[in-house]
Amino acid sequence: MMSKVVTLGEIMLRLSTPGYDRFVQAESFDAIYGGGEANVAVSLANYGHEAYYVTKLPKHEIGQAAVNALRKYGVDTSYIVRGGDRVGIYYSETGASARPSKVIYDRANSAIAMAEPSEFDFDKVFEGAKWFHTSGITPAISENGAKITKAAMIAAKKAGATVSIDLNYRKKLWTPAQAQKVMTDLMQYVDVCIGNEEDASLCLGFTPEGLDVTKGSLDAAAYETIFKQMKEKFGLTHVVSTLRESYSASDNGWSAVIYDGKEFYHSREYELRIVDRVGGGDSFAAGLISAMLDGKGSKEALEFAVAASALKHTVKGDFNLMSKEEVQTLVDGDASGRVQR
Amino acid sequence: MMSKVVTLGEIMLRLSTPGYDRFVQAESFDAIYGGGEANVAVSLANYGHEAYYVTKLPKHEIGQAAVNALRKYGVDTSYIVRGGDRVGIYYSETGASARPSKVIYDRANSAIAMAEPSEFDFDKVFEGAKWFHTSGITPAISENGAKITKAAMIAAKKAGATVSIDLNYRKKLWTPAQAQKVMTDLMQYVDVCIGNEEDASLCLGFTPEGLDVTKGSLDAAAYETIFKQMKEKFGLTHVVSTLRESYSASDNGWSAVIYDGKEFYHSREYELRIVDRVGGGDSFAAGLISAMLDGKGSKEALEFAVAASALKHTVKGDFNLMSKEEVQTLVDGDASGRVQR
Amino acid sequence: MMSKVVTLGEIMLRLSTPGYDRFVQAESFDAIYGGGEANVAVSLANYGHEAYYVTKLPKHEIGQAAVNALRKYGVDTSYIVRGGDRVGIYYSETGASARPSKVIYDRANSAIAMAEPSEFDFDKVFEGAKWFHTSGITPAISENGAKITKAAMIAAKKAGATVSIDLNYRKKLWTPAQAQKVMTDLMQYVDVCIGNEEDASLCLGFTPEGLDVTKGSLDAAAYETIFKQMKEKFGLTHVVSTLRESYSASDNGWSAVIYDGKEFYHSREYELRIVDRVGGGDSFAAGLISAMLDGKGSKEALEFAVAASALKHTVKGDFNLMSKEEVQTLVDGDASGRVQR
Amino acid sequence: MMSKVVTLGEIMLRLSTPGYDRFVQAESFDAIYGGGEANVAVSLANYGHEAYYVTKLPKHEIGQAAVNALRKYGVDTSYIVRGGDRVGIYYSETGASARPSKVIYDRANSAIAMAEPSEFDFDKVFEGAKWFHTSGITPAISENGAKITKAAMIAAKKAGATVSIDLNYRKKLWTPAQAQKVMTDLMQYVDVCIGNEEDASLCLGFTPEGLDVTKGSLDAAAYETIFKQMKEKFGLTHVVSTLRESYSASDNGWSAVIYDGKEFYHSREYELRIVDRVGGGDSFAAGLISAMLDGKGSKEALEFAVAASALKHTVKGDFNLMSKEEVQTLVDGDASGRVQR
Amino acid sequence: MMSKVVTLGEIMLRLSTPGYDRFVQAESFDAIYGGGEANVAVSLANYGHEAYYVTKLPKHEIGQAAVNALRKYGVDTSYIVRGGDRVGIYYSETGASARPSKVIYDRANSAIAMAEPSEFDFDKVFEGAKWFHTSGITPAISENGAKITKAAMIAAKKAGATVSIDLNYRKKLWTPAQAQKVMTDLMQYVDVCIGNEEDASLCLGFTPEGLDVTKGSLDAAAYETIFKQMKEKFGLTHVVSTLRESYSASDNGWSAVIYDGKEFYHSREYELRIVDRVGGGDSFAAGLISAMLDGKGSKEALEFAVAASALKHTVKGDFNLMSKEEVQTLVDGDASGRVQR
Amino acid sequence: MMSKVVTLGEIMLRLSTPGYDRFVQAESFDAIYGGGEANVAVSLANYGHEAYYVTKLPKHEIGQAAVNALRKYGVDTSYIVRGGDRVGIYYSETGASARPSKVIYDRANSAIAMAEPSEFDFDKVFEGAKWFHTSGITPAISENGAKITKAAMIAAKKAGATVSIDLNYRKKLWTPAQAQKVMTDLMQYVDVCIGNEEDASLCLGFTPEGLDVTKGSLDAAAYETIFKQMKEKFGLTHVVSTLRESYSASDNGWSAVIYDGKEFYHSREYELRIVDRVGGGDSFAAGLISAMLDGKGSKEALEFAVAASALKHTVKGDFNLMSKEEVQTLVDGDASGRVQR
Repeated sequence: MMSKVVTLGEIMLRLSTPGYDRFVQAESFDAIYGGGEANVAVSLANYGHEAYYVTKLPKHEIGQAAVNALRKYGVDTSYIVRGGDRVGIYYSETGASARPSKVIYDRANSAIAMAEPSEFDFDKVFEGAKWFHTSGITPAISENGAKITKAAMIAAKKAGATVSIDLNYRKKLWTPAQAQKVMTDLMQYVDVCIGNEEDASLCLGFTPEGLDVTKGSLDAAAYETIFKQMKEKFGLTHVVSTLRESYSASDNGWSAVIYDGKEFYHSREYELRIVDRVGGGDSFAAGLISAMLDGKGSKEALEFAVAASALKHTVKGDFNLMSKEEVQTLVDGDASGRVQR
Repeated sequence: MMSKVVTLGEIMLRLSTPGYDRFVQAESFDAIYGGGEANVAVSLANYGHEAYYVTKLPKHEIGQAAVNALRKYGVDTSYIVRGGDRVGIYYSETGASARPSKVIYDRANSAIAMAEPSEFDFDKVFEGAKWFHTSGITPAISENGAKITKAAMIAAKKAGATVSIDLNYRKKLWTPAQAQKVMTDLMQYVDVCIGNEEDASLCLGFTPEGLDVTKGSLDAAAYETIFKQMKEKFGLTHVVSTLRESYSASDNGWSAVIYDGKEFYHSREYELRIVDRVGGGDSFAAGLISAMLDGKGSKEALEFAVAASALKHTVKGDFNLMSKEEVQTLVDGDASGRVQR
Repeated sequence: MMSKVVTLGEIMLRLSTPGYDRFVQAESFDAIYGGGEANVAVSLANYGHEAYYVTKLPKHEIGQAAVNALRKYGVDTSYIVRGGDRVGIYYSETGASARPSKVIYDRANSAIAMAEPSEFDFDKVFEGAKWFHTSGITPAISENGAKITKAAMIAAKKAGATVSIDLNYRKKLWTPAQAQKVMTDLMQYVDVCIGNEEDASLCLGFTPEGLDVTKGSLDAAAYETIFKQMKEKFGLTHVVSTLRESYSASDNGWSAVIYDGKEFYHSREYELRIVDRVGGGDSFAAGLISAMLDGKGSKEALEFAVAASALKHTVKGDFNLMSKEEVQTLVDGDASGRVQR
Repeated sequence: MMSKVVTLGEIMLRLSTPGYDRFVQAESFDAIYGGGEANVAVSLANYGHEAYYVTKLPKHEIGQAAVNALRKYGVDTSYIVRGGDRVGIYYSETGASARPSKVIYDRANSAIAMAEPSEFDFDKVFEGAKWFHTSGITPAISENGAKITKAAMIAAKKAGATVSIDLNYRKKLWTPAQAQKVMTDLMQYVDVCIGNEEDASLCLGFTPEGLDVTKGSLDAAAYETIFKQMKEKFGLTHVVSTLRESYSASDNGWSAVIYDGKEFYHSREYELRIVDRVGGGDSFAAGLISAMLDGKGSKEALEFAVAASALKHTVKGDFNLMSKEEVQTLVDGDASGRVQR
Repeated sequence: MMSKVVTLGEIMLRLSTPGYDRFVQAESFDAIYGGGEANVAVSLANYGHEAYYVTKLPKHEIGQAAVNALRKYGVDTSYIVRGGDRVGIYYSETGASARPSKVIYDRANSAIAMAEPSEFDFDKVFEGAKWFHTSGITPAISENGAKITKAAMIAAKKAGATVSIDLNYRKKLWTPAQAQKVMTDLMQYVDVCIGNEEDASLCLGFTPEGLDVTKGSLDAAAYETIFKQMKEKFGLTHVVSTLRESYSASDNGWSAVIYDGKEFYHSREYELRIVDRVGGGDSFAAGLISAMLDGKGSKEALEFAVAASALKHTVKGDFNLMSKEEVQTLVDGDASGRVQR
Repeated sequence: MMSKVVTLGEIMLRLSTPGYDRFVQAESFDAIYGGGEANVAVSLANYGHEAYYVTKLPKHEIGQAAVNALRKYGVDTSYIVRGGDRVGIYYSETGASARPSKVIYDRANSAIAMAEPSEFDFDKVFEGAKWFHTSGITPAISENGAKITKAAMIAAKKAGATVSIDLNYRKKLWTPAQAQKVMTDLMQYVDVCIGNEEDASLCLGFTPEGLDVTKGSLDAAAYETIFKQMKEKFGLTHVVSTLRESYSASDNGWSAVIYDGKEFYHSREYELRIVDRVGGGDSFAAGLISAMLDGKGSKEALEFAVAASALKHTVKGDFNLMSKEEVQTLVDGDASGRVQR
């Protein structure tokens, strides 16, 4: 089943040090184009959906390279507006063991952050769309980013699409106060909300007890209360969160919880040996959207999303380059890692 | 003690994606020449034996590169027939955590698969040979492959060499019915048979209960019955199998069992952090052959073979580039990984 | 607080095979300049100290590259004497799982091993210095090496600097008898002595019971007795040792013990997933020195040193490229490896 | 002006040794997907045309990677049939100075060579198409290849598209007799024919005097007679050839000639310092087609095509990654290579 | 003879595609820190001068990496102010043959462009300085950049240092009108002015006839008139320009002219096979400054500068990693390129 | 025609900077095993001769890697003595344009330099040998080296082999006086002498006029007189020299002269675009030996040798990886560099 899905956001150039090199050691950077919603779009294209990505990118070759990275994996880039000066950048180094991964942002004044809402013809974009996904990053990059997100949400709802958001609070981009003002307004258009406790607290002002993500130990049950409150306040159909247990930069536990108004469900947990954790949350969102578009129930959809994102952690780069069949094999229980000949 | 050992089979070009890259990410492939019996030959040469490898390879430079890969590690390539069109290929990507390694074959119509038995002078090849080793892959690649294998086995037995086979069932190459017809015939010449339950079932028609390799958990004891049956039916001197516990693509348990007509023995078990598992089984076969040629008993030989193959999982490429001394150090108990200065 | 610290020793060219490649596979070597005391100097510069490194290096470009490697990280190289013929070399390959890392030395006749004590103006070198650190390697490389070390120690004491030594017994360089003769003499100038049981036994002739480093399991308590004896015999202020539990070449346990005349203390233990363990001990020494210079007590200093060296195991190359803040974060308890944005 | 252009052919995996390495030196191969007509399609997409590529490719990841390589550069791959077993391969090493580049083919039994004409819906493919381009390679790979080519040409003519062919004789694929039989039949549908003297002779049976491509010196004038004969015999609108003067593998002279029924014209000549000459001819064809679609006259079109292909020789890989503006700048005379800031 | 030399400017991160790859092909970028005046500083340090570089760089690791790049080659970085958000970036691809090199700037809002003059203590910086060098780029990046440059020039003159400038007009940064306003003011402090005809025209408003740099052919003589005018108008001691004949992106002719108030002199011309032309002009300036500081006359200094910069074109990266002796060998006539053993 | 040929010398580890990197830029070194006579042996094996290489190499893995490098290309290494401590090293960087290539030696005390003549059983080595080749480097590395060379020559003559020497004066290893003493003695066993004017002067004391190799321009004719004198004095059958015209490090002219007692002959001249010039002279010697063993006359042999070595300059590494057919194609006149499909 192939559905038109639209995602909107910023695709950046990630300059990643090779292997486990620290920034000051790097004689070169791997050039990886990615970004929350773009990563979702690629996954959806991999799963066979008609995935469109909306953003603004400069006309020069670095902007073009970002477009090409998406086209390569089958994302439709025809709605991307071309113009502006720069592609946002972030530098990343990959941690190991007790050393955390590290990110340095250089994303101010990117083409999409400087774009005007009027540059996008959202009525056309959402024609026939079944789903719209974005994140809390786009409204955070600039006032225009927030306006564009809102305009897109309104058009999406008008077109009858389901709207999902990954809260993704970014402390370098805005304060909790700013975030809550903008996000609370946007939530009126949202159907499916993804975000952990930290996001819920900082973006939406929910501050439950018994959760401390910095401890690396998570109590799934504590999410139930907050999810019910969120659903009620914003009229959501589903509230979802991944649960990462950070034993170290190399090894994590990984599972997720969902609440669909009826039942609160905690997925199977995976033990991850990490290759590249960037895009892990995005691959989860994509798995969830794909499974829901395919008509799966909350539990099944959650298990597909968790398996998809468990696999993402083994793939270098932002994109989760897995097929629907590969994810399903893991959902079905084969985690033995035996060679597929 | 240096003995002439002959191995026969197909050496292929393995096109391996760098690091953990998926096929669709690869901008280059590592070029690794290897193949079951060739891998055995290299190990035997490393252990100080006079190792000969027999196959057919094209005269062009890709064929030559395969020859050179063997010569580099001291394998005698003077019995290799040159001619034919292509070197068989397989593409491989290395899995991690819950993502399995993956292999795509492109091996049809290789020079050895198209070769005629008459192209090989097996009487000369086996002059003075103490051991002949091959696998169930060669007879599977083509009817000629089966004929060549049989001709080699007959000549080997005539020359007084011990004959060993690694069953290695490959479902892409033949059906169980085809395999059983050919392999049952070949088994009359075999002294030492290596193969797990799956191989025994698919190649030879033995279908014991209580074993399920897909579960990633193995019951060594269950092998005892089947090994006794195999020994009896085919007049084998030794029946052997490795036991892999696939926790994930990154971590495996690794041990082996042997039955020598008197005793059934289960080796020490190693916990492996995997660098490259291709050729793991071949390094086991080579360790076993070398230890037996060196006059070791069943248990000692098995422990040498298991230690050798545990070490192989830490070496990139198909070949197990370990010396006899290095393997022995591990057999003797030092698995601490402390720096050897 | 920025203090002048002087280190003295040999910086070598480490020719390291890429990834986990064995020596015979290497088509290239990573070129890494490092050496015990140089590694300490780089760490101290990273922590904001005024770090000077003293050695002799050839005038040619390989000697220059060694100088540049130090300058890059802020070490003052103005006391380095230039001349002689060669930079000492060692080849290294990185082990994994049950396969140990391996080192082949080619360090004889290096510029520093052939240098004369008279080439160094140690009065000038130690002017204003707060600390002098060296290791048991420099006196082992040649008779001149021993003389130079002694001359430096005398000058350091004269200038009022604290003197520390990392015993670091190297069996390829001298016998226990030779070591004990030289080292016992040098110990009269030492304040802080770092060394494990093996070093204490081979360099200094202490042979306690209950310790066996080859087992990969360590009894911290057994160190207490030997430390007290050492302190007494040599008039040390602190006796210190790291404790490595070698589960395999990939995974180690890591902690340390200190005795300051009053108390014997065993630090927190870290579970390490190893990227590069070369320089692990040096990063510990540097952490200890820095913390002591910063006025921390024995326990605090030890915890800083252990955390620093735990982090080093995740950094490729000999140098520990961590800031004081990064080490402190780990000391303060965040080992979750969560991304630092 | 954006026109629908269809190209048909085989896209192969080129396994190219790094730098100037010989095959026997290669520890890895650069993985480059390309092929005559696919290269043309990419250029046309770069120039802003609606470029479609038609072929058959396996469903597995190597087939997918070939699709992705085209999508990345904006080629529409929706007409590509998926199925079959293998992607054709060729190995290539890059020559230098007096050492020629070398190619080893392993392309037999590829998916497109085994495809049936009935698998393609050419009426749909050519709906609205303005141009169809293919080469003499596709009909040479198999009888089915010839049938598919003919079916495509008939459909293209029916749809009113201009048909161009690049003769591209391949001696490893067929004999001159076979070529002439097939190609003479196909020429009835061709409007624009590209091919040098060797192609004209071997594919079409024209054997003029005064031309010897092995000499590396070319007499443009001698082409005039043969072009007139070709135009007359096959009713062509344009006959075109590139003229390569091979001084060495590193340096070539490069120009072209065209005859449009009225005038015979020899282009400007470029002196090339070669980075990668694979795809040079294809980039010429693409330049010619683009310029003709843009309404340029014979001379102008030829100059655009020559400049485009002169630039291709500086780009690694098969594809000519130049924009229309970049080519035009060279046509307009700036060959100074001054930095474009 | 070792003199204190100060340079001031912006050091950027150059993200350079590997080999001759185009931007859209790059899977990684070589990370090269460099910039006009920083390049001059490195050359001067290589020649044995006490070279100081003044700029502002962020405290984060990318800023630190820029500092380290300078320290590695012996530049004193203690006057660098730390703070601000970003290191300016430019992307570069290396041209070949008829394809020009290409640069995409992303340098707006860098730390130095946003810096205040008050952040620099120029009196301290120029204490004992013999020479100050900067370029026309720094005043162009921002109004503050212009103010900082002026403040530095005034302090330099006050301290008795010779002041040199490399005009380096950058059309992306300002208009000729803006440039002339700022630069004409700055010229009152300048002693030695380096700049070609284009710079003289666009920065200073001199528009002589008979010079056309886009033609790639240069008439040295035509420079004489304009140099005399410049000297007169601005009270310069020396007016200098390099002369590049751009045959192609791969091959250039390279020489220079100087006017010292008495004589106009045209240097020897070198034929360059280019490895990396970035920093060519900077290496020329550095050669000139070094030779003048060493007391050479105009002709000798020019020949040293031209030889130095001819050699730079063979060195990858921005920095000219040549010693004084190596440059002198070329000045003395050995351009045979015979191996130096 | 396959003849047993023995070569004797030192194989070293060449640590070569990547691309055109300078030593101080290198983060890694390409690891290339090679050396004058070893390079000759590889060429001879490539041409189908039975090539034996004699040297001494350490038992450790670096020694083994040198053995493997030879075995890979078919050289028989069974006469290599194993023992000693180190493999000689040299660092190399590749020049370009006016920048010369540079070499730093670190070869003292290598296993072969420390070997005793008694370690080699030369009677066995030369059993059935048709040719013995060595160079003036081996006798220069140590007194033992000279003794070993002499012992080998005596045994070779005794066995009826032709003896050739490549004079190859190395100023870092000995003075002209030392060289002349040793070499004059060795010349009594030599039949074929290869060496340019510089070698003849420094090794043998011949000092003709009219030759200046530093000028990069060579007068072939001037060689005639000196060759006649050499032939007479030492009873040589052939005197041979290559003639290199060093236009720059990137481009050379390349030809050779031979005198066979009857005729003086100057070969065809090649214009070389250089990839790697190391081993150029060795590939010439190998071409000459192979052609003479194949029964070619002086002129034909010289042309084969010159063509072979012209091709070597295009191959990375020390070894000339060309087949007899590839060399012959160039001898026969095809230097067009057209792709070989």
